[in-house]
Amino acid sequence: MKLKKPTLLLDKQKCLENIRRMKFKADRHKLIFRPHFKTHQSAGVGEWFREVGVDKITVSSVGMASYFSAKAWKDITIAFPLNMAEIDDINQLASEISLNILVENEAAVSFLSGNLHSAVGVFIKIDAGYHRTGIAVDDHLAILELIRKIEKSAHLTFKGFIVHNGHTYHASARDEILTIHNQSLEKLSHLRHFMLQKRVDAIYSVGDTPSMSLSENFENIDEIRPGNFVFYDLMQQKSGACQFSDIALALACPVVAKHNSRNEIVIYGGAVHLSKDFIQDKNGHKIFGLVVELLPTGWGTPVDDTFVKSLSQEHGIIKASDHFFKQTKIGDFIGILPVHSCLTVHAMGEFVVLENNPEKTELKLCCM
Amino acid sequence: MKLKKPTLLLDKQKCLENIRRMKFKADRHKLIFRPHFKTHQSAGVGEWFREVGVDKITVSSVGMASYFSAKAWKDITIAFPLNMAEIDDINQLASEISLNILVENEAAVSFLSGNLHSAVGVFIKIDAGYHRTGIAVDDHLAILELIRKIEKSAHLTFKGFIVHNGHTYHASARDEILTIHNQSLEKLSHLRHFMLQKRVDAIYSVGDTPSMSLSENFENIDEIRPGNFVFYDLMQQKSGACQFSDIALALACPVVAKHNSRNEIVIYGGAVHLSKDFIQDKNGHKIFGLVVELLPTGWGTPVDDTFVKSLSQEHGIIKASDHFFKQTKIGDFIGILPVHSCLTVHAMGEFVVLENNPEKTELKLCCM
Repeated sequence: MKLKKPTLLLDKQKCLENIRRMKFKADRHKLIFRPHFKTHQSAGVGEWFREVGVDKITVSSVGMASYFSAKAWKDITIAFPLNMAEIDDINQLASEISLNILVENEAAVSFLSGNLHSAVGVFIKIDAGYHRTGIAVDDHLAILELIRKIEKSAHLTFKGFIVHNGHTYHASARDEILTIHNQSLEKLSHLRHFMLQKRVDAIYSVGDTPSMSLSENFENIDEIRPGNFVFYDLMQQKSGACQFSDIALALACPVVAKHNSRNEIVIYGGAVHLSKDFIQDKNGHKIFGLVVELLPTGWGTPVDDTFVKSLSQEHGIIKASDHFFKQTKIGDFIGILPVHSCLTVHAMGEFVVLENNPEKTELKLCCM
Repeated sequence: MKLKKPTLLLDKQKCLENIRRMKFKADRHKLIFRPHFKTHQSAGVGEWFREVGVDKITVSSVGMASYFSAKAWKDITIAFPLNMAEIDDINQLASEISLNILVENEAAVSFLSGNLHSAVGVFIKIDAGYHRTGIAVDDHLAILELIRKIEKSAHLTFKGFIVHNGHTYHASARDEILTIHNQSLEKLSHLRHFMLQKRVDAIYSVGDTPSMSLSENFENIDEIRPGNFVFYDLMQQKSGACQFSDIALALACPVVAKHNSRNEIVIYGGAVHLSKDFIQDKNGHKIFGLVVELLPTGWGTPVDDTFVKSLSQEHGIIKASDHFFKQTKIGDFIGILPVHSCLTVHAMGEFVVLENNPEKTELKLCCM
């Protein structure tokens, strides 16, 4: 394939290994594996999950649920608080597949009671420390009250509790991730103990990729829903959740200019391709991507002392080592490992799959 | 129109006023007005420019040029350094319209000399202080050398110099913007003086929205290429380049949760809708958007002491005043003024036009 402009490359082998590794872990711990499909948003990648036996998935919007439902996924959890304005689409989905939705307040449950026409499973969003959404994990009475309300509604079946410890994404080391995860499990075990006393049976579902990648402790957990692990990215690598060699995506970008006086390389590849998420190095420099050399069937390890220092709409500016600056020519294509693969995939809307055989397939994202 | 999910609203009246104001300024100063279409990327908004007499435009990619060429725009400058890999598309465009491209190095000129089949106008990118791309404005000899090389090439016609002072976007006050602009003009006047001595006739083209909005000094300038002004955004408002009332876009978002203990409102509206650009308030808090109340034909001024404090893929978290927290209900739609309209428009891919009459039209973005 001849590259023309910024193109997102997917290394199929790395991706398959990431999928298999997580599937094996789920099996080893006897966990329901319900991977989050918001990172790849692709029917084609979805099939790779299906091939290892996955039949339950998580998505983050009603539109994504509709897309995957049309691709024969029949057991979907929408892990996002109910958006009442989409009730018609939810009713449509609920009549076709086994659908779980997320609530965290009585307003949502009341609305569903009055507006649902088919059976829907309900998870309650629990906040175990991230403080983005959910009922506080230790507010047992409020949680129980919501369950009782759910149980009274004709079309709602209480399924369990969903936790997402998104603060692990900003952890700087493995220990920090494991501490967050273990503290969360402890709080959930108190919740489980309370709920057992109240004869409430529930699925306890956790999700973040860093904890799911690093931990072997899943005590009192029934289901895992990681998503990012399918591709990983620099944020995950920095936190210790993966190695550089696990990152399955690179954005191929044309070199369009070089500036000798400041060892900077300008690429066609900007915020509309990579997104504006960044990590910081130990000196506090913002890093919007690391640079890899493109090979016929993949890419190498990150080039030393070389990184994307800034992004504007279509421009990326690379601060390069002397060596890399010298060897790089205007017109070359170089690879950029993304900081946050979920946003890069969404920004690009499609990727090209690199396989061991020379035939390459383009998988389109779903339209949302 | 019934809103279902995050929807980008465009206030047509505000947008038309922004367009007319900039067109009048260009006319008043006898400047060629070649607006940058990368902010709106829309054939429909393009027609509003055409209605006030605009027939020359700027774009930032070959794909965007092809899109607008197909919409009957016949004089287009691609203000991005040449991407050699797109030479076939450039040749196609050059055979159809009056096309200008951007170069900043001999590699690009040599490549074009060997690969172009039709006449193309060439602008040289000049760096007047932003240090992203371009030849240093005071490196007169290097610039002249590149012009001589362009002049020797059969299909290339040297047109002039393009400057983009993108550092004005990060200015914190009007004076800072005007200082950058005036220093740039002074450097360009030295360049012009030198070039006149060498009998080089050229168009001097400048571009950034902050300077174009605030300055009345266009001495020695022939052409302006602002883009963002068509919609403006919070970054521009913060720098003094516009008022809140000039911002022509708001993202309508459903409220999906409220957290009383921390006065936080959760909206369906995240990084995939708004992008991750932020501004900082005087206390150093990151602001990813300001909140407005939606009205039948538009929206109000920003709600006091209320802002988007964080974004994840689909979630936005609003830190709300007591008053706004109390009055907002789960299921409401509220408006978010974007920090960076170019990236929000690109992320959303489409917007809904609010007009005075109840008929509303949806304009699709170009596909790139």
